[in-house]
Amino acid sequence: MKAARIYGAKDVRVEDVELKNLGTIDVKIEVAWAGICGSDLHAYSQPEGLLPTDEVHPLSNRKIPLTLGHEFSGTITEVGSDVTSLKVGDRVCVEPNLRCGTCKECREANYHLCRNSGAAFIGLADDGGFAEYCVLDEKHVYQIPDHMSLEQAALVEPTAVTHRGVELAGVKAGDKVLVTGAGPIGLLTALCARAAGATSVYITDVSKERLELANSFGFVTSLNPTEEDVVARIMKDTDNTGVDVAIECAGVQATFDTCLSAVKITGTVCLVALFAEDPKLPTFQALIKEAKVVSSLAYANSYDRVIDLIASGQVPAEKVITNKIGLEAIVEDGFELLLNDKSQSKVLVSSK
Amino acid sequence: MKAARIYGAKDVRVEDVELKNLGTIDVKIEVAWAGICGSDLHAYSQPEGLLPTDEVHPLSNRKIPLTLGHEFSGTITEVGSDVTSLKVGDRVCVEPNLRCGTCKECREANYHLCRNSGAAFIGLADDGGFAEYCVLDEKHVYQIPDHMSLEQAALVEPTAVTHRGVELAGVKAGDKVLVTGAGPIGLLTALCARAAGATSVYITDVSKERLELANSFGFVTSLNPTEEDVVARIMKDTDNTGVDVAIECAGVQATFDTCLSAVKITGTVCLVALFAEDPKLPTFQALIKEAKVVSSLAYANSYDRVIDLIASGQVPAEKVITNKIGLEAIVEDGFELLLNDKSQSKVLVSSK
Ligand SMILES: [Zn+2]
Ligand SMILES: [Zn+2]
Ligand SMILES: [Zn+2]
Ligand SMILES: [Zn+2]
Repeated sequence: MKAARIYGAKDVRVEDVELKNLGTIDVKIEVAWAGICGSDLHAYSQPEGLLPTDEVHPLSNRKIPLTLGHEFSGTITEVGSDVTSLKVGDRVCVEPNLRCGTCKECREANYHLCRNSGAAFIGLADDGGFAEYCVLDEKHVYQIPDHMSLEQAALVEPTAVTHRGVELAGVKAGDKVLVTGAGPIGLLTALCARAAGATSVYITDVSKERLELANSFGFVTSLNPTEEDVVARIMKDTDNTGVDVAIECAGVQATFDTCLSAVKITGTVCLVALFAEDPKLPTFQALIKEAKVVSSLAYANSYDRVIDLIASGQVPAEKVITNKIGLEAIVEDGFELLLNDKSQSKVLVSSK
Repeated sequence: MKAARIYGAKDVRVEDVELKNLGTIDVKIEVAWAGICGSDLHAYSQPEGLLPTDEVHPLSNRKIPLTLGHEFSGTITEVGSDVTSLKVGDRVCVEPNLRCGTCKECREANYHLCRNSGAAFIGLADDGGFAEYCVLDEKHVYQIPDHMSLEQAALVEPTAVTHRGVELAGVKAGDKVLVTGAGPIGLLTALCARAAGATSVYITDVSKERLELANSFGFVTSLNPTEEDVVARIMKDTDNTGVDVAIECAGVQATFDTCLSAVKITGTVCLVALFAEDPKLPTFQALIKEAKVVSSLAYANSYDRVIDLIASGQVPAEKVITNKIGLEAIVEDGFELLLNDKSQSKVLVSSK
């Protein structure tokens, strides 16, 4: 079958590979759609530290070359003899976080923080979804309802990231929320905050196209920090109170500072983005506001509700899709395009 | 009457001053004991920014010279005509945070974060307790039980600071807790964490004398980072899990890093200390642990329970007292001693 495999920095090859054998608890998925994520771009540009380049990952027993792609959907074409939760023909999406199942975190339902995984994923530390087929342990696979499209299903994974960020930030009905960064994660965060009951959602970015996409949601106030003082605007709108919650999806000092300045007294800043360089924490401001800074990594125990939210239309995640391409075009029209054209948001790759 | 008034940097004068007139809602307190706090030392060394040096504070309408002292106890000798909650002879302690009573924070019971106060206190922005007498609005004054000493009563204020830190950090029965810094606030934090049910309490400091005082509590594990790898020790003791909560009472990058490294996955770091320089936030570590960083400023709605905790012996706050001096000696045996001798912990000043 065809798969897009990474061999090293800027070296992804679409080639014929053999699919791994189906184990007794595995299912075989004919992949429909797989989204390209920021971490795929990171792995493509600079695989060291993110992919098992030298040593195999202890849970997957694999290292590069590996098939990328962790945000994917498809249809089951074969099941192992001991599989109980799924059958041939089921339309599914994949929860890709690798976990040992036995460490303290796995036992206490924090399997996304598994001590033996180090936040490793199928599609980064094991073969993923940029391929015609994928064979996976059934525990990673969730059935989707009939009225949910396979495009929507490919968005369950990134939406689960933002759903959990909104959850850990404690967004509740009636809240005012600031999201810094209008990339796919920022946009999905805005949608999840709205679904959690936020009455006002502000989003910031320096890209006009991204802010226009946010505006198309209908409920978002888009702010460009190069054109407007974001904190002053929010303070003006909120009678000098600030937002209840700020969710940091950009990962730089300036946006982190904006979040801390824009939250109300006793407000919460939630970090979802990875920072290339650690920011300074403005402790006096945090103290005088009794502000909280929380961090959210991936998701756990979230898929059922995220599937519901997307399928019901409460989180119209499909709105962040800006392009759909074929597998053969993944390097040029996927990775390279996304690295160079910041007007793009989510690009879905077909397995064909 | 005699009072210790600050005129500027390193200029505190014990002199005769006139006591302010008793208003209809005021009480007159004959001061018994007043503790010297880290913020008094800060005000003594470098008053700008902490005291109203140029403009009067909007709530007190006062600027320097001012009588310092915000951790004090005494006996009521006179009450205004409209005072209802207190009477002559009552033994009391003082909750010194200034507040407007009408802003959003004051209305929502966060009066310690009053928008018109800026964390100002009686004894820093208005006349305080390093004096023979103090006249105060009755809302700042709490009666203590008969079996509580006036020395203990002078410790209610700093204990309220640490009680709230422990509360916001979410310490609960069975928790393991790290406290960085064994000054008075660190020591009182250890006592409050124990009272909240912590089974293990670690405390770090570079001063042998401070660690010995902590050891005298009987339940604390004292660690000196110049002699031992604190994080390695905690990981060894906790089967590689870490502490549930770390409370930062030292205010430097090294101890902040220790806190983040020592907390468990999903643990909480609570900042109580002021930082002279803002630390870098290790975002990757915070993210991969989903660690929370919360800040705690002063206290609100805490005094009744802190008085109970000290009076009942569950928080033996008096153990942090290392010296008692007279008002005339406050500069030499108080401020100067505490600035130079890090083996001292809490020094109480008698009003006589
Ligand atoms: Zn992703
Ligand atoms: Zn595990
Ligand atoms: Zn104090
Ligand atoms: Zn107020």
